[in-house]
Amino acid sequence: MASDGELERLAERLRRFAAAREWERFHTPKNLAMALSGEVGELVAEFQWLTPAESADPDPETRRRIRAELGDVTNYLVRLADLLGVDLIEAAHAKLDENERRYDPALYRGSARKAPPITP
Amino acid sequence: MASDGELERLAERLRRFAAAREWERFHTPKNLAMALSGEVGELVAEFQWLTPAESADPDPETRRRIRAELGDVTNYLVRLADLLGVDLIEAAHAKLDENERRYDPALYRGSARKAPPITP
Amino acid sequence: MASDGELERLAERLRRFAAAREWERFHTPKNLAMALSGEVGELVAEFQWLTPAESADPDPETRRRIRAELGDVTNYLVRLADLLGVDLIEAAHAKLDENERRYDPALYRGSARKAPPITP
Amino acid sequence: MASDGELERLAERLRRFAAAREWERFHTPKNLAMALSGEVGELVAEFQWLTPAESADPDPETRRRIRAELGDVTNYLVRLADLLGVDLIEAAHAKLDENERRYDPALYRGSARKAPPITP
Repeated sequence: MASDGELERLAERLRRFAAAREWERFHTPKNLAMALSGEVGELVAEFQWLTPAESADPDPETRRRIRAELGDVTNYLVRLADLLGVDLIEAAHAKLDENERRYDPALYRGSARKAPPITP
Repeated sequence: MASDGELERLAERLRRFAAAREWERFHTPKNLAMALSGEVGELVAEFQWLTPAESADPDPETRRRIRAELGDVTNYLVRLADLLGVDLIEAAHAKLDENERRYDPALYRGSARKAPPITP
Repeated sequence: MASDGELERLAERLRRFAAAREWERFHTPKNLAMALSGEVGELVAEFQWLTPAESADPDPETRRRIRAELGDVTNYLVRLADLLGVDLIEAAHAKLDENERRYDPALYRGSARKAPPITP
Repeated sequence: MASDGELERLAERLRRFAAAREWERFHTPKNLAMALSGEVGELVAEFQWLTPAESADPDPETRRRIRAELGDVTNYLVRLADLLGVDLIEAAHAKLDENERRYDPALYRGSARKAPPITP
């Protein structure tokens, strides 16, 4: 985690939460990756029957559930990264550095395809 | 997003990344939830054949791939939350508030079961 | 598995495949559920940037990849159910029995909402 | 679907279930892939805090929930394949043909690694 940021403070609170319940032995990276996957499944389920347009403006009750799922996903992601000693912010920027090189705007503008056009 | 933190700066970079490629029309919450799900699937796959103990100490090459997947997951999670106007840190702490009330340490110590014991 | 059906024959081939490679010790239900999740993530990724309409008629190359992912998902699902002694066809019909009772066509026609209308 | 097998009969029942509720418009491949992902998330959640050994012998209540989730997963998988015109059994055997060629038992015996050893 970054040394003094908002994610580090959340990671610290999650450490205390697990310690107070003696849940550290359940919190292996393998198990936490599964828990993250389960929460993301619940998040995806909130959007499954919505059209893409509807998904951008969910009704208040759906929005409330989505926010709760996003909180769960964040907690498991931060806990998993903390146990592995990975700084999520650095890892995210490193992936963006790579993607900025890989997806040249001149070749990929407006297209979601993965392969660049043969004649740009 | 929190107004001036590390997640807000990442969200801003992701906005510019999408705008430069005119990818905003692909970035509906529905589509981003799917992309998040796909990346979490890749993360889970890194752990699937490891024992829980092995997962806590992956070899350098596996660790490098896990870090890259964690970066992808973070980017899609932050982008999704940004489009929905959800502050991930606030949402995570709100879920922790709820879980601290729900899982009384006196009842749940050392146990992963969801239901409290009948005679605590 | 059903006693003599197409799923049972697939389960039997999967048993021989694992035995020939001495992979049984990796094939715990926990690990197989993770592998299934990873393959479903790859399947979801095929559809993530498509509109719902486009997803109904993928181009030949996308269709080829989707079919391969559906094969992977089926193999892990059948292997997991086989190890747990669950007959997938019976389990599926049992869930459909339940859903037919739960979602009365008179109340749910044309609606994906989960709660019935207050005044049907 | 195979022309007269148990999966074809299940697909036919799912068609009637959707038609009776006029849910066909929700059942695009994109949406069904998301629903499948959500159900697999629920399945994974059943195993997340179990050790690999415990996952092989779940208690009766957990086993009952796992069976129900396997039923849900099967239903969405069969419905998705039906809409895309993919025969799951053929797709699964095609993937196994490929994997039998790719993972030579002499090189992969007892190992879950993906790359063959340099000196077999």
